[in-house]
Amino acid sequence: MRTGLALAAILMSSTAALAQDVLVESEQADFTIETVATGLEFPWSMAFLPSGEVLVSERDGRLRVVTEAGLREAEVTGLPDDLVSVRQGGLLGLELHPQFESNRLVYFAYAAGTESANHTALARGRINEDLTALENVETIFRVNFDKERGFHFGGRVHFLGDGTVLLSLGDGGMHRNESQNLDNHIGTMVRLNDDGSVPFDNPFVSTRGAQPEIYSYGHRNVQGLDIHPETGEIWTHEHGARGGDEINRIEPGLNYGWPQVTYGINYDGTPVTDATEGEGYEEPNWYWTPSIAPSGLTIYEGDAFPQWQGDMFVGALAGAMLLRYEMHNGAFISEEELLTDLGHRIRDVQTGPDGLIYILTDDAEDRLLRLTPVIN
Amino acid sequence: MRTGLALAAILMSSTAALAQDVLVESEQADFTIETVATGLEFPWSMAFLPSGEVLVSERDGRLRVVTEAGLREAEVTGLPDDLVSVRQGGLLGLELHPQFESNRLVYFAYAAGTESANHTALARGRINEDLTALENVETIFRVNFDKERGFHFGGRVHFLGDGTVLLSLGDGGMHRNESQNLDNHIGTMVRLNDDGSVPFDNPFVSTRGAQPEIYSYGHRNVQGLDIHPETGEIWTHEHGARGGDEINRIEPGLNYGWPQVTYGINYDGTPVTDATEGEGYEEPNWYWTPSIAPSGLTIYEGDAFPQWQGDMFVGALAGAMLLRYEMHNGAFISEEELLTDLGHRIRDVQTGPDGLIYILTDDAEDRLLRLTPVIN
Repeated sequence: MRTGLALAAILMSSTAALAQDVLVESEQADFTIETVATGLEFPWSMAFLPSGEVLVSERDGRLRVVTEAGLREAEVTGLPDDLVSVRQGGLLGLELHPQFESNRLVYFAYAAGTESANHTALARGRINEDLTALENVETIFRVNFDKERGFHFGGRVHFLGDGTVLLSLGDGGMHRNESQNLDNHIGTMVRLNDDGSVPFDNPFVSTRGAQPEIYSYGHRNVQGLDIHPETGEIWTHEHGARGGDEINRIEPGLNYGWPQVTYGINYDGTPVTDATEGEGYEEPNWYWTPSIAPSGLTIYEGDAFPQWQGDMFVGALAGAMLLRYEMHNGAFISEEELLTDLGHRIRDVQTGPDGLIYILTDDAEDRLLRLTPVIN
Repeated sequence: MRTGLALAAILMSSTAALAQDVLVESEQADFTIETVATGLEFPWSMAFLPSGEVLVSERDGRLRVVTEAGLREAEVTGLPDDLVSVRQGGLLGLELHPQFESNRLVYFAYAAGTESANHTALARGRINEDLTALENVETIFRVNFDKERGFHFGGRVHFLGDGTVLLSLGDGGMHRNESQNLDNHIGTMVRLNDDGSVPFDNPFVSTRGAQPEIYSYGHRNVQGLDIHPETGEIWTHEHGARGGDEINRIEPGLNYGWPQVTYGINYDGTPVTDATEGEGYEEPNWYWTPSIAPSGLTIYEGDAFPQWQGDMFVGALAGAMLLRYEMHNGAFISEEELLTDLGHRIRDVQTGPDGLIYILTDDAEDRLLRLTPVIN
């Protein structure tokens, strides 16, 4: 449901002339939207450092640092030479190693290759103390399929509680049928050890002809990924075609149906398939038609917004809003549309270590925003 | 999600000057909205006769007949003498006996008593062949609690597959705490045999001090009730206060929480309770904040709209729209807002025996509308 959201006031921030804090009244919480940084260009993902800074990836291939003073001008050096910026691809998802405080390892997904032959890859490197360079960068995984154009890279990265790491992938736009084909990584989620090797308990390690990194398949383009802080469940969302964007709970070895079953239709108006469900294909836990183009996903856990504990937040690019879902036993029981009055295309949403909610916008003037509760 | 609903055209009906068929394009189906009858006053509920007419209750205390020619002027006589029209109360839900073709029994809920001392009651009577009169009318159930004002009567009636009948009730507005008190029927759902006697297998027949008709409790004001055509599950919705309207799946003996746990707030802005959930209280399967004021509920089964098979439709008074929910294993997996451009307050929505969807509006000029698929 669309909430009776109101921009109740525009308050001048005391800290920065550029930053205007917007006060929002929502169903369960009043909060301000603070501009933490401006000057970003196509920011894609965030990682929160224990020292307080925020790493931000820019899609065109830059790794940036945001401090309390705002965006640091110098970019972090050391990204791989084979990174290519091509349409939807470039530098994508960021994630810190669970033992970052001791090993300083930053993981990042990126588009590798050339404009006409590229694939999604996962790399890691140590970031130095003054946050100016990645060192000892190594690419630890590559999709085994070069695609010809710059669409549908996936690119979200998340560690699981067991120390393995998940990487979301896409169908490349032109290779949808490969999402059902286990001999390549197109249209899958892969699960790796932290050095890129294959966990012995992946679902297809003993399946002849299948790539052993594959964890789930039948995906179109997964751009949102989080682990439920209480249950440990893996939740993702993915873009449908024209309609049929989905939220899924991911379990090992399962087939999420693309392009065999989907609620979407092709951009030319023809149905992708007559089937919206079928045996052997997982039904989505939620879907959107028409498309909102979801990007970024966080399941909230923190002290700042106790009312939102366990709620799922989804950013929307085309939908230009932040969606909040209340969940109960894995089912969705209420929907709230937030920030609809602002019109920001949202690329990423994450919960910060301070319990505040951080958002990257994908607008003419891209920003890092922060939602802070108003204590009445 | 709000659909890209478009009023694509206004077509003149060939059958009646008053009737304009409105063409609507929605997510999964294109349909026309046909005006079946005008001239109704606060219509509340419908019952579809095997002979093709539609019985319509008017809240102020009239039972009407709609034929293919429109609303019949003469009302059906024979309603009980103790029926009182007071604010939200009067003639309420209609339901035919499962063996209507042989016994011609019409069941109806109504407000009985006076403006200052009234209760919800359930009666039945035989409708004659020419649909002019109810005969042998008898009141078979009364709420054992007179309330002082005209609010929150409940009043939806539905037979179950086992031949018993469910009646939804409300908390009377001023008596919310009685919804937790089993010694009266306020704020409950009751289940009766078709003659009003108590089914031996009701959940509280052996509970000392409890009213044996009670099937579930902790309700505020249930104005939507249907039985899932495939699973036989009982689905209801109820009005919250300011926010916290709920959809529930009803199981015998369970406590649905009002007013101990709710997502609603009082009209003066104070929370009804700090608790939105608690042990011993059922969580809603869906809730709306802010309120949409749901009224009428049908789970679609029919040949006319195969795409909508198994979907739940909910009318909204304050929300002024028709909501469609896609369900999977009892969970809601997608929402579509329909008819938002029309602005009709919707009092009831039902699936007709012809598989078309019928709607009663609660507007300046009340109507019976029918949704008919457009075959492309």
